[in-house]
Amino acid sequence: MAQSMLLYWSSGSPPCWRVMIALEEKQLQGYKHKHLSFDKNEHKCEEVKALNPRVQVPTFKHGDIVVNESFAACLYLESAFKSQGTRLIPDDPAEQALVYQRMFETNNLQQKMYDVAFYEWYVPEGERHESALKRNKESLIAELKLWDGYLEEMGKGSYLAGKNFTMADVVCFPVIVFFPRLHCPPERCPRLMEYYKMLKDRPSIKASWPPHWLEKPEGQDMLKNL
Amino acid sequence: MAQSMLLYWSSGSPPCWRVMIALEEKQLQGYKHKHLSFDKNEHKCEEVKALNPRVQVPTFKHGDIVVNESFAACLYLESAFKSQGTRLIPDDPAEQALVYQRMFETNNLQQKMYDVAFYEWYVPEGERHESALKRNKESLIAELKLWDGYLEEMGKGSYLAGKNFTMADVVCFPVIVFFPRLHCPPERCPRLMEYYKMLKDRPSIKASWPPHWLEKPEGQDMLKNL
Repeated sequence: MAQSMLLYWSSGSPPCWRVMIALEEKQLQGYKHKHLSFDKNEHKCEEVKALNPRVQVPTFKHGDIVVNESFAACLYLESAFKSQGTRLIPDDPAEQALVYQRMFETNNLQQKMYDVAFYEWYVPEGERHESALKRNKESLIAELKLWDGYLEEMGKGSYLAGKNFTMADVVCFPVIVFFPRLHCPPERCPRLMEYYKMLKDRPSIKASWPPHWLEKPEGQDMLKNL
Repeated sequence: MAQSMLLYWSSGSPPCWRVMIALEEKQLQGYKHKHLSFDKNEHKCEEVKALNPRVQVPTFKHGDIVVNESFAACLYLESAFKSQGTRLIPDDPAEQALVYQRMFETNNLQQKMYDVAFYEWYVPEGERHESALKRNKESLIAELKLWDGYLEEMGKGSYLAGKNFTMADVVCFPVIVFFPRLHCPPERCPRLMEYYKMLKDRPSIKASWPPHWLEKPEGQDMLKNL
């Protein structure tokens, strides 16, 4: 089955990584894939363009089915391989609601992290403002506090949506990992840092760890002054 | 069943509206609800705060289950009431993949619409730049072209993910409606305008139409110069 899958991806991209974790968790190792370099702009290639009008990664194909949005690909994989590998969305209504809730809250954490760590990348030089970056930092600090509180409330050893690893972890871990990597002061989110340590060696995560991070384990310090 | 549901919402908010359309489609009329005014900052009230640490609407409760992110609430309702009312996520894998794909692409359309229509609302006066607004407009125009192309490709009378009304329409319609309302030139997205006309009188949509838009059918012209 995995042989009829093709993933175009780039190293270190949270949306790509979450699809890769989902593939691992659903025991779909052996899927075909093509690693494209962001730095060389390889993700803007004709192959991707042919499958994805947004010309971005991840671009994912399973047989004739193309599903490129990372959340969409993850939900599709869980639905198509429900009984295979890790069950990522529980049946119990209350558990399921919490998984969905944390999954979609991830967009807030991701955007707020980008708005600080990659501010200079996203905002052209003449349009940058100290006041905006300051506001972004405050917003990210508040967001981290929220997530740390969620983990605190659920107790030691919890995953993001309870006692089991779920789709909430699949989609959020590749964002959380940026905090230790980009030197976020650990006191900003001590529970998230414990969570990070608990998950970083999980087989699905280790198997899909960004290769350029393995070569260069130390990231830049964009979150040092948070 | 609907009697054990409680929705806090504000008029005209796309995230609130999509939960309301889902409730209508799933035949859950009769749910309890509380309309909070954005203008009066009512959505920052203690009742909402008690259920939603982000203190925002929608805030949604079903029995003891709280699920506030709009996409999460919509997926939860479909899952909990799968065989009731309209089936919003099809079983067929290819159809399902397309529904998920368009659902999550909606975030792009929504963000890009906000970045133009509400630029002055989001960006403090001293941080505004003509160059940024121009870039936002170009990005929105390209986004609209993409969606118009999706509808063009699927043919006249199609919904966003094919021949049936699905969750893609539930989550995206409340964003699309802003284009005619805020005077977007119809030639920017002729297929989306046809789609809008086809859907605006659908019972679930009509029943949940923002009350302050009924009082004031003409919106401001923030998208006039797109």
